[in-house]
Amino acid sequence: MTVSHPTLVLTLSCPDGPGIVHAVTGLIAGYGGNIVQSQQFGDPDTGRFFMRVEIENTSREAIDAGMLGLVERFGMDYKLVAQGQPVRTILMVSKDGHCLTDLLFRHRSQGLDIDPVAVIGNHTDLAPIAEFYGVPFHHIPVSKETKAAAEDQLLALVKELDAQLVVLARYMQVLSDRVCEELAGNVINIHHSFLPSFKGARPYAQAHDRGVKIIGATAHYVTADLDEGPIIEQDVARVTHADSVAELVSIGQDVERRVLAQAVKWHCESRVLLNGNRTVVFA
Amino acid sequence: MTVSHPTLVLTLSCPDGPGIVHAVTGLIAGYGGNIVQSQQFGDPDTGRFFMRVEIENTSREAIDAGMLGLVERFGMDYKLVAQGQPVRTILMVSKDGHCLTDLLFRHRSQGLDIDPVAVIGNHTDLAPIAEFYGVPFHHIPVSKETKAAAEDQLLALVKELDAQLVVLARYMQVLSDRVCEELAGNVINIHHSFLPSFKGARPYAQAHDRGVKIIGATAHYVTADLDEGPIIEQDVARVTHADSVAELVSIGQDVERRVLAQAVKWHCESRVLLNGNRTVVFA
Amino acid sequence: MTVSHPTLVLTLSCPDGPGIVHAVTGLIAGYGGNIVQSQQFGDPDTGRFFMRVEIENTSREAIDAGMLGLVERFGMDYKLVAQGQPVRTILMVSKDGHCLTDLLFRHRSQGLDIDPVAVIGNHTDLAPIAEFYGVPFHHIPVSKETKAAAEDQLLALVKELDAQLVVLARYMQVLSDRVCEELAGNVINIHHSFLPSFKGARPYAQAHDRGVKIIGATAHYVTADLDEGPIIEQDVARVTHADSVAELVSIGQDVERRVLAQAVKWHCESRVLLNGNRTVVFA
Amino acid sequence: MTVSHPTLVLTLSCPDGPGIVHAVTGLIAGYGGNIVQSQQFGDPDTGRFFMRVEIENTSREAIDAGMLGLVERFGMDYKLVAQGQPVRTILMVSKDGHCLTDLLFRHRSQGLDIDPVAVIGNHTDLAPIAEFYGVPFHHIPVSKETKAAAEDQLLALVKELDAQLVVLARYMQVLSDRVCEELAGNVINIHHSFLPSFKGARPYAQAHDRGVKIIGATAHYVTADLDEGPIIEQDVARVTHADSVAELVSIGQDVERRVLAQAVKWHCESRVLLNGNRTVVFA
Repeated sequence: MTVSHPTLVLTLSCPDGPGIVHAVTGLIAGYGGNIVQSQQFGDPDTGRFFMRVEIENTSREAIDAGMLGLVERFGMDYKLVAQGQPVRTILMVSKDGHCLTDLLFRHRSQGLDIDPVAVIGNHTDLAPIAEFYGVPFHHIPVSKETKAAAEDQLLALVKELDAQLVVLARYMQVLSDRVCEELAGNVINIHHSFLPSFKGARPYAQAHDRGVKIIGATAHYVTADLDEGPIIEQDVARVTHADSVAELVSIGQDVERRVLAQAVKWHCESRVLLNGNRTVVFA
Repeated sequence: MTVSHPTLVLTLSCPDGPGIVHAVTGLIAGYGGNIVQSQQFGDPDTGRFFMRVEIENTSREAIDAGMLGLVERFGMDYKLVAQGQPVRTILMVSKDGHCLTDLLFRHRSQGLDIDPVAVIGNHTDLAPIAEFYGVPFHHIPVSKETKAAAEDQLLALVKELDAQLVVLARYMQVLSDRVCEELAGNVINIHHSFLPSFKGARPYAQAHDRGVKIIGATAHYVTADLDEGPIIEQDVARVTHADSVAELVSIGQDVERRVLAQAVKWHCESRVLLNGNRTVVFA
Repeated sequence: MTVSHPTLVLTLSCPDGPGIVHAVTGLIAGYGGNIVQSQQFGDPDTGRFFMRVEIENTSREAIDAGMLGLVERFGMDYKLVAQGQPVRTILMVSKDGHCLTDLLFRHRSQGLDIDPVAVIGNHTDLAPIAEFYGVPFHHIPVSKETKAAAEDQLLALVKELDAQLVVLARYMQVLSDRVCEELAGNVINIHHSFLPSFKGARPYAQAHDRGVKIIGATAHYVTADLDEGPIIEQDVARVTHADSVAELVSIGQDVERRVLAQAVKWHCESRVLLNGNRTVVFA
Repeated sequence: MTVSHPTLVLTLSCPDGPGIVHAVTGLIAGYGGNIVQSQQFGDPDTGRFFMRVEIENTSREAIDAGMLGLVERFGMDYKLVAQGQPVRTILMVSKDGHCLTDLLFRHRSQGLDIDPVAVIGNHTDLAPIAEFYGVPFHHIPVSKETKAAAEDQLLALVKELDAQLVVLARYMQVLSDRVCEELAGNVINIHHSFLPSFKGARPYAQAHDRGVKIIGATAHYVTADLDEGPIIEQDVARVTHADSVAELVSIGQDVERRVLAQAVKWHCESRVLLNGNRTVVFA
C-alpha cells in the first residue's frame, strides 16, 4: 500500500557551523525523502545560518521526529508545514479597497495560498467586496475609548478562527504594543512609503514636498516600534514634478498592492525568515 | 545672404496667468523663429509657470530684445542658450573613480555635452583618468586647517576657467555655506542613497542595517542644507539579504554613475528648472 | 452672468511648419481661454507635428469655430473633448478576470475615467464580476460558425450604447478585418508578451522555451494585422530559470493588467495620438 | 601545521533523483569542508538537477577525489574552481568602447574577477583604452577574404594565452561555426536588443520603426545559431516617441554595458550553468 504525502516545507535557523546541511539532508534521505528545492544562507554579520527545503515523499511525523536531535545538537529553530496548505488569514482594512480587492482576487484566481477567514474593518465601506468574495466581514470600529476593547475582539477572533496571519491591508489604525507582541511575526503591514523615508502620516504629501522622483511602498512585519519592523519587500514607481499629491497616492496604490501581495505570498510559502530586525527572503 | 543660426533653448518661469504661452510664441513667430519642441508646466501649489522652448531660425539677439517686454509684463526669469554649446564643467573627485570615468567616457563617446575644463581631486588617485581623457587635473588637498584656502582655490578656478557647472562626482568633502551660496544652482552632487533615506555618512551601511530590499542614489543641487537640496534625479537597484555592505556599495556605484550622468545631461540641456526646493524636469 | 466651462482637451496633428503653436495659442487667447498644460512633438521622420493642450475658461463652440480656419490653413486633424467626460467603454473578456477586475476597480475607486457601458464575454465566467460592479454583462459565444453573427452583435452594441472605446481585456478571440477597420483607433488590446517577441499563441510558453530573463506585456491599438498595431504602452517583469510556465503566466498577469490600465487611462485622457503605425504619448 | 585553502566553488548537474544533495554534502563534510552557500534547482521539464556550492576548509584534491564516485553514481558533470581565481579573458571589440571601458574599469576598481589577457580589435579605435588599462591590444582586421585567417589568429591567441573566456564586447563580426563550436560555452556576446525581438542588424532602428516603448539588451553564450544562444541576462530601459534612433542607441549602450558586465561577473563566479539552450543562473 502506498501512502501519498504532501510536499513539506522545512525552514530552520541556528548558529552557523560545519555539518548543518549534511545533517539536515541526511535526516531527509534517511526517511526516504527527496529534496525538491533547497536554499541556504549564512549571515556573516550575525553568525546565524538559515535554510529552506522542500521535501517530497516522506511524512511530517518522520521529519518532526528526526528534527528533535538536530534541535538539540545545533540549537535549531524550525518550522515544518505542508505545501499548499492555505494560511488562515485575517485581513484588516479601513476605507481604501485596492489592497483588499487585490488580495482576494489573487486568492480566488491566481493561486495566492491564503484562506481568508475574516475581513475586519473599522469602517464598513469594504464590506461588499468581502461579501463578493464570500469572506465574513466584521465591523469593529475604533475610537480612543474603544481601542482596547476593539483589540480584544481582534485577539478573540484570531483565536476563534485559528488565524495564523493578520494582514493590515491599508488598516489606518496603529496596533498597541500588546497586540504587536502577542502576534509577533504574524502581522504584515503595508506602509505607503519607501521606508525609512517618510515614516508616519501622509507619506505621499511628504514625498511631494521633498520633490522626490521615485515613490515606493514597504511591506514589513509589525513590531511595537512603528514603521521599524523587519522589511519583507519594497518596490517603487517613477513620478515627475507634474504629479500632484493625489496622483502620487494613485500611483502609489499600485505599488502598495503589488508589494503587499508579494510579501503575503512569500510569507505563506515559508520563504521569509526573521534575522533580528531584518529578513532573509528565499525568493 | 543667409545667416545660419544655432538652435536656441529658452527656459523661463513666472507667476502663472493667461496669455504667457501666446506671448512667448508670438515673440518667436514675430522674429521668424520656428518652435522645434516646447514644454510647459503650471504648478498649482506655488502658482508658478515654467516653460522650455527650442527655437530654430532666429537669433539670440532678437529673442533677447523681445524678452525685455515679457520680463516686465509677466515678472519673468529666463535663460537663453545656444543648443550644443558645451557647458564648461569642473569635476570634483576624491578616490572613487566610477562617476568620473563614466562622465568623461560619455563626454568623449556618447555626446554628453559638457566641456570638462578641470578635474579637482583632494587626492591624486584619479589623476591618470583625467590625464587619459586630456583634462587638466588639480590636486587640492583638504584638511580642517586648509579647507578655507582650498575653497578659495576652487572659487578662483571657477572664475579663471569661466566654469558654469561644478559636479561633485563622489567628492567626499562638504562644501561650506559660502561656496554653496556663491555657486548656487550650479553645483550638482551625487548622494549615495535614495534620499531622504540614509542622509549623512555611510548610507550603504545604514541601508544594510535597516534591511532594505532596494537601494538608490540621488543627484541634487547642492545647498547649504546638507543632503536637502533640490532633487534632479533618482534611481534604484534591488538587493537581497545576501548582499554585504561591500556588495551594496558595488551595486550602488552603478546606480550612482547612471543617476549623476542623467542629471548632468539634463542640466546641460537646460531641462532642469528650480521650483523652490524642488525641480521641474522637462525630460 | 458667468457661465462656467469644463476644461477642454484639444489634440491635433498636421504637417510640421512654422507658426502652428502661435496660431493655436492665439486662437485660445482670442477666446479668453487659458492654457493649463500643453505638449508638442514634431516627428523629424514623418515631418508631422502633434500637440495636446488643456484649455480653461472658454467654450467648446468657440474653439470649434476657431479651428475651422486652422484646419484649412495647416491641414490639421483635431479632436476636442471635455476633460472628465468619461469615455463610454465596452470591455470584452473570456475567462481570465485579472484585467477586468482591475479596470472596474480602478474605475470605481481610483478615478479611471471610463464609463463601462457593457462587459461582453464569449464565456460566462466573469459575469459575476461585471454584476458586482453594476455593469451589464452580455454573453456572446463565438464559434467558427457564429463568428460573423457574434461580431454583428458587437457592432450593434457599440452603436446602441454609443460606445467610444472597446477594450479587449484578455479577450481570446481575433477580431475580423471588418471589425478592426470599422472601429479603427478605438480598440485597445493587451497582448501577453513584450511585442514583437512572441507573437501569436501561448507567448509565455514560448518565453519559457527561449529562456528569457524578463517577460512583458504590450497594450496596442488593434489593426487587421494581428499583434502589429500601434503600441501604446509596454512593461516588463524579471523572471528566473526556476519559474515554470504557470508562474510566468501569473507574474505576467500582473504586468498585463498594469499595462492595459495605463493604456486605457492615457487613451481616455486624450494623451495618445496615432503617428502612422506608432503612437505619440503625451504622458 | 595548518594549511589554508581557498574557498572552492563546485558546480554540477546530473539527472534528478533522490540522494544527490546528501551525497554531495556528505562528501564535503567527510573531508572537513564547510558549506558557505549552496543553491539547487531541479528542472521538471528536463528532469535535470543543478547545484552550486561554496566550500571552505578543504582542498581541491580532496573534493576531486571524492567526486569520482559521484560522477559514476549519478552521471554527474561537475566543475571545481578556486574562488577569486580571476578568469583569463580575451575581450573582442570593434569601434564602440562603452562595453570595453566598463569591463576594464570594473576589473580595476570594482572587483570584476577577470584577468584581461588581451583586447582584440578588428579596428584600432580602442587601442588607447586597452593601453590605459595595461592590456595588450591585438589588431586583427577582418574582411571576407581574411576571415578564416583572422579566426585562426584568435584561436591561436586563446591557446597561447590560455584564455578561458572570450567576451564579444560589441564586436561587430559574426564568428564562424567552427569557432563557435571550438569555444562553446566560453564565448559571451552582448546583443543590442531584447531578444528574441529584433534579431540581426540595426536592432535600434528596427525598434524605432516598430514604435516600442521599452528597449533592451541581451547577454548570451554564442552558438552557431546567430542570436539564438542561451540567454544569461537581459535588461531594459524605457523610451518614448520623442527618442530618435540615435537616442535609442545611446540609451541602449547603458543597458548593454550593464547587462554584459553582469553576465561576465556571474560567469566568472560560476553562477551560470547550461541547461540545454537555456541557463540556470544561481544569482
